[in-house]
Amino acid sequence: MQSFNPPVRTLMGPGPSDVHPRILSAMARPTIGHLDPAFVGMMDEVKTMLKHAFQTENAMTMPVSAPGSAGMETCFANLVEPGDKVVVCINGVFGMRMKENVERAGGVCVEVHDDWGKAVSPEKVEETLAANADAKILAFVHAETSTGACSDAKTLCEIARKHDCLTIVDAVTSLGGVELRVDEWGIDAIYSGTQKCLSCTPGLSPVSFSEKALDKVRNRKTKVQSWFLDLNLVMGYWGQGAKRAYHHTAPINALYALHESLVMLHEEGLENAWARHKSMHDKLKAGLEEMGIGFVVDEDIRLPQLNSVWIPEGVDDAAVRSELLNTYNLEIGAGLGDFAGKVWRIGLMGFSAKEENVLFCLSALKKVLNK
Amino acid sequence: MQSFNPPVRTLMGPGPSDVHPRILSAMARPTIGHLDPAFVGMMDEVKTMLKHAFQTENAMTMPVSAPGSAGMETCFANLVEPGDKVVVCINGVFGMRMKENVERAGGVCVEVHDDWGKAVSPEKVEETLAANADAKILAFVHAETSTGACSDAKTLCEIARKHDCLTIVDAVTSLGGVELRVDEWGIDAIYSGTQKCLSCTPGLSPVSFSEKALDKVRNRKTKVQSWFLDLNLVMGYWGQGAKRAYHHTAPINALYALHESLVMLHEEGLENAWARHKSMHDKLKAGLEEMGIGFVVDEDIRLPQLNSVWIPEGVDDAAVRSELLNTYNLEIGAGLGDFAGKVWRIGLMGFSAKEENVLFCLSALKKVLNK
Repeated sequence: MQSFNPPVRTLMGPGPSDVHPRILSAMARPTIGHLDPAFVGMMDEVKTMLKHAFQTENAMTMPVSAPGSAGMETCFANLVEPGDKVVVCINGVFGMRMKENVERAGGVCVEVHDDWGKAVSPEKVEETLAANADAKILAFVHAETSTGACSDAKTLCEIARKHDCLTIVDAVTSLGGVELRVDEWGIDAIYSGTQKCLSCTPGLSPVSFSEKALDKVRNRKTKVQSWFLDLNLVMGYWGQGAKRAYHHTAPINALYALHESLVMLHEEGLENAWARHKSMHDKLKAGLEEMGIGFVVDEDIRLPQLNSVWIPEGVDDAAVRSELLNTYNLEIGAGLGDFAGKVWRIGLMGFSAKEENVLFCLSALKKVLNK
Repeated sequence: MQSFNPPVRTLMGPGPSDVHPRILSAMARPTIGHLDPAFVGMMDEVKTMLKHAFQTENAMTMPVSAPGSAGMETCFANLVEPGDKVVVCINGVFGMRMKENVERAGGVCVEVHDDWGKAVSPEKVEETLAANADAKILAFVHAETSTGACSDAKTLCEIARKHDCLTIVDAVTSLGGVELRVDEWGIDAIYSGTQKCLSCTPGLSPVSFSEKALDKVRNRKTKVQSWFLDLNLVMGYWGQGAKRAYHHTAPINALYALHESLVMLHEEGLENAWARHKSMHDKLKAGLEEMGIGFVVDEDIRLPQLNSVWIPEGVDDAAVRSELLNTYNLEIGAGLGDFAGKVWRIGLMGFSAKEENVLFCLSALKKVLNK
């Protein structure tokens, strides 16, 4: 067995995105102990910077020590008690995964369906909550990574509040890429991933919980089914002050990387990062349209960082993606689920959202498609 | 906010251990996609090398994308069905954590207690299994990180088999540090961590499951309560062949690091690594005894990689550890639970198990204790 030297790719799929060399090099800094005072200081900085990225004052804002799927499970396993009715909006793969999470936590799932590529319909949510007065939680995906559609989180949260429901929001692909305001919009529980618009390596899941959400966790009648993800325990390690109770060994070096990516986000400015994603999308869109390639998602609800486009007729999906990967070291994403074979997903996330990538991707696609 | 530059410590606590520069630098290699053919090839190598490290042919041998506690939960959440009776051996912190896991999975826990610092008693296990004919699983910790005691996994597994029980074994601190033979000893489910004797960064949990264990998972009457840790789904991503079904985004760079640490283990040879841990322990022991510092655990069941020693009378635990950390950048471990304030845990794990560290640790301790 030999050391593994990965090829140098350009990552323009649905994530991971290209990771800035500063972040990779932060990851390789010397490991220290997970209870080292120097490490505890760094944890506090990560929390502070995450709060800013989420636009929240929630004290319970921290990265779960595992990928986005575990962040999702942290929200559902802690907030859903057996028998709780949860309204789940499904307009792509990740809404379906939310349903799985509700059921495995013993909850009762009421589904609101919208077509793939469409946003969650506030009208349907309103109707469903009105018809289910005993619903306790509304769950939806802000930025559907499987389709590239952005739902109106602010309006959906307003509706949920009106019906006395907590909200669980998937922001895996939105954090750092498009407008997201946890406090202003009244989101109660939110999870994201590090490998999308934060441009960090995959493996951590930033989450944030409102006091209202934490009250529900604190007052559960049954223990959270997961020991590893139980917020009552995790809070003891990620809590305030210098005293940290050992819970699990934090992924030290991965947290160095997240810290560095958040420093870079601060240096750029959150709103500037949102604007950059939008402006790169505009450039990519112009080039794709010139090639006659059309978008799946309507412009008003389109995520700039996740561009789902129809594969031109007669084009062999897998062959094109292989040629891009093998000849140009360029990764673009395949379609998931209903969109498999029909759609490409071109990511412009974090460090990948730059003009060099846009120009390169357009030229490589032109070559391979003989346009 | 500034970039975080950690102090350079010598890590001789209960883990993380010192990480070799080769492993840190592997971690900083360019991120590629989690479905990239090059990545899938690397995953297969990780599996092959982990099988060797565990001394098993189990096809289902792979790293869980989260720390050791999540590896523990993977075993219990998949193997314990509601109502299942599980005999749990408790001789330290991690046996207690196993009990928590059993109960949260809906199992019924029967406890076998041994004193902290002692090995699990095969006689008590035999008695308990004889008295609980309906028990389905025996769970115990091979190497108790909270005390430094090693239990006789081979004998315990024999007893379990005689009573038709599956076994779940915690090998977080033993893998790579002391003899461990999954197939020969007949272990059904085992989990470890990367940050101990593998000398890798924390964040992943290597696990392995026998066919008998997987049969129980496949034939469950209820779904595994965790979506993230459900082996039925994880197998689709870590399974055989080139086809991998997307489950969650793997922590790419952390896996580079694990790959490199396993390459290094192969280069050294597994049995050589075991012997090195033993020989470093002998050197440390000689020095400590010269200073009049005594061991908590009897020599015949003592883990060479985790040295629990009694804090000399009249010595201020926290003050000594602080001085070691602040003056010499040397981390040794505090006592956990019953041992808090009474015991130090000096780790000699992986890259930390070398003569430089032994000599340095002894000299620094002598200075601080004025011996």
